[in-house]
Amino acid sequence: MRDSIIARRNRGLSAAFPAPHFPSELGENVIAFDSGFAFPDLLPDLTACAHNALTAERAVSLQYSPNHGQPALRAWIAGHMNEDGCNLTADDILIVNGAKHGLELVCKLLLDEGDCVVVTAPTYFSAVPIFSAFGAQFLEVGLDESGLDVDELESLLDRREGEGLTLPKFIYNVTDFHNPSGTTLSRERRQALVALAERRGIFLLEDNPYRKVRFDGDAIPTLKALDKSGVVIHTGTFSKLVAPGLRIGWVAADKGVIARLIQLKADGGTSALLQNIVLEFCASAEFPRHVARVRETYGEHRDRMIVALKRELPLAELRAPDGGYYIWVELPAGCDADDFARRTAQKDVNILAGSKFFAVRDGYPSNRARAKRHIRLSYSFATPDQIDEGVRRLGDVYRGAAWAG
Amino acid sequence: MRDSIIARRNRGLSAAFPAPHFPSELGENVIAFDSGFAFPDLLPDLTACAHNALTAERAVSLQYSPNHGQPALRAWIAGHMNEDGCNLTADDILIVNGAKHGLELVCKLLLDEGDCVVVTAPTYFSAVPIFSAFGAQFLEVGLDESGLDVDELESLLDRREGEGLTLPKFIYNVTDFHNPSGTTLSRERRQALVALAERRGIFLLEDNPYRKVRFDGDAIPTLKALDKSGVVIHTGTFSKLVAPGLRIGWVAADKGVIARLIQLKADGGTSALLQNIVLEFCASAEFPRHVARVRETYGEHRDRMIVALKRELPLAELRAPDGGYYIWVELPAGCDADDFARRTAQKDVNILAGSKFFAVRDGYPSNRARAKRHIRLSYSFATPDQIDEGVRRLGDVYRGAAWAG
Repeated sequence: MRDSIIARRNRGLSAAFPAPHFPSELGENVIAFDSGFAFPDLLPDLTACAHNALTAERAVSLQYSPNHGQPALRAWIAGHMNEDGCNLTADDILIVNGAKHGLELVCKLLLDEGDCVVVTAPTYFSAVPIFSAFGAQFLEVGLDESGLDVDELESLLDRREGEGLTLPKFIYNVTDFHNPSGTTLSRERRQALVALAERRGIFLLEDNPYRKVRFDGDAIPTLKALDKSGVVIHTGTFSKLVAPGLRIGWVAADKGVIARLIQLKADGGTSALLQNIVLEFCASAEFPRHVARVRETYGEHRDRMIVALKRELPLAELRAPDGGYYIWVELPAGCDADDFARRTAQKDVNILAGSKFFAVRDGYPSNRARAKRHIRLSYSFATPDQIDEGVRRLGDVYRGAAWAG
Repeated sequence: MRDSIIARRNRGLSAAFPAPHFPSELGENVIAFDSGFAFPDLLPDLTACAHNALTAERAVSLQYSPNHGQPALRAWIAGHMNEDGCNLTADDILIVNGAKHGLELVCKLLLDEGDCVVVTAPTYFSAVPIFSAFGAQFLEVGLDESGLDVDELESLLDRREGEGLTLPKFIYNVTDFHNPSGTTLSRERRQALVALAERRGIFLLEDNPYRKVRFDGDAIPTLKALDKSGVVIHTGTFSKLVAPGLRIGWVAADKGVIARLIQLKADGGTSALLQNIVLEFCASAEFPRHVARVRETYGEHRDRMIVALKRELPLAELRAPDGGYYIWVELPAGCDADDFARRTAQKDVNILAGSKFFAVRDGYPSNRARAKRHIRLSYSFATPDQIDEGVRRLGDVYRGAAWAG
């Protein structure tokens, strides 16, 4: 390996292959609470959609197609978001290979080496290496039960300006059922955040994969719905609503931003076959029934896990999320979540320690201490019985760990 | 639009949407010689493959899957390349969303802002913005009927070293049926190029989408087959062999490079559904028949276009390519290919002027003069009758143009 040829910022990349992690790679006894995999029983029957896409639509489905995506799917997504309070046309939508591809394209458009971006502490851990690969520096802001602390962000930006530092290029946030904390940004905070972004001229990057997976309470307008000036760049996906294996997501933004992202989207176009399959399904009578079933099923999984956690880890602190895939659990004082995750893996329960969710090591004032006590549990993939059994094993590990005293 | 927030190197991006270009966007009378679209009659029947992928394999096809790709497809590709003289395992293969995604990942791994890369003059025009987006500077090297001029490259590198400049990070080349020139790198040049790359410690980025679309002569070993030290990073694709709409390509490289590319591949994994469809098809008895039909059909298209060009543009210089999708035509002295392309578009024949295929404007010594007289014609998408009719219109335009005198 010619390590010296690798880009400076990538010198630390490992030459080792990733460990087994995906459902197809896991042993039978393993219970996966670590990732947002889809519950297998919720993966829809797409055979008829695929058949149609590969027969009547074959010449389009199997050909190169526009970088920005199939016009009909872009229009469907605009309509889908307009039903949710937005005011978009197909030209405000770019189809991407999953929402993460959208995040990457936004970085490609906006970031120069050394630029600053705002993330919450904790934040979605898969976004961090995407931003880092473009040379981003992180400004962390805290969150509470109402989501990102906008007042604190205002102070941080004031201080930055006072120090003569450039403003961040964008503020990244998962607004609904935040990953990993499960919190949903309140309406007041959303309004304040959009106002702050407009006033300061900073893009808001709203990542909202779980929007329709709400169990409790009423939907709060997305940042994109509150956006009158084009300051919000929104990423959405069919991964959580239809199937992750389709890898179809979208970016909703100002037309001028979309036009530039199209030029940076150098993948030869997102698969027209997948787009046609998604559109056939979403435009079918089955789609609303499917969405209802997704909500109901994941709601049951959440309830099952909450009950099990209260039984097995009665001293842990947690709050039931109103939707999404995750519960953010604070273990009692004295616990070491990294150690806990290692121990549960030995009992074939995969979980993620909270320390993975902080962009800056030792960054945010209270990160290390708080991270050391958090775990993120996903209830999406496991069956209800596996949820019971997995949490039972967590309880065993907790009670057996030396630091549990 | 907050233009000031956009990354420095992207300030020139247009806020306008791209013009209609893809088959689904074109009028009925338009004849498309401009792009490497697949011939619609060659798009295979994938209904049975998709049905199986969506029933027996549903839990895998519709789930998140490993970033590096499905093990069985990676093994199939390794075998496919080993039949062609390589010595690879599945761990030397990374599945990507089309070969261009592979080029992008290689840039993400290797390039720092301002790094130099070697490209031929002319070169594949879609690679240029991919490299530029990572801040690449271009070192152009000429080519003749035997492909990239390795002696000239050696001199250019010597001169660069003499001037105290850093070496290029990689040498990019389309080795078989070069895009746009149609030339195939000779065996002697391949050996010399691999030796040069090893001696100087520069990666070779071998882009080989047309490898199996050979009509005449025997295959010459790929750079990857000649590579004993891991200096070659090879990109391949199913777009030219099965269907572009699948967007499945691969990178074949040293395991250490692949492991790092996996970490930079932030798309949430390439669609397992598409990978399973591709594998079902490639492992079927239909696949070799399909490949034979692809060769035969495009060979007929090439012959038809060569005959028509000799009839309609007898003064133009051209060489029949041994494979691939393109003919590189040098119009007679005094012609202006940019003007010619504009005029043919008015007659509903889309072609690309040679000037699009040079990474550096006014870069290579004789570029401007030569580029001004070249056009690239693709014979892949049009029917044989459209090829006759389209070239007839080219002849009309040529004879009617003022500069044709």
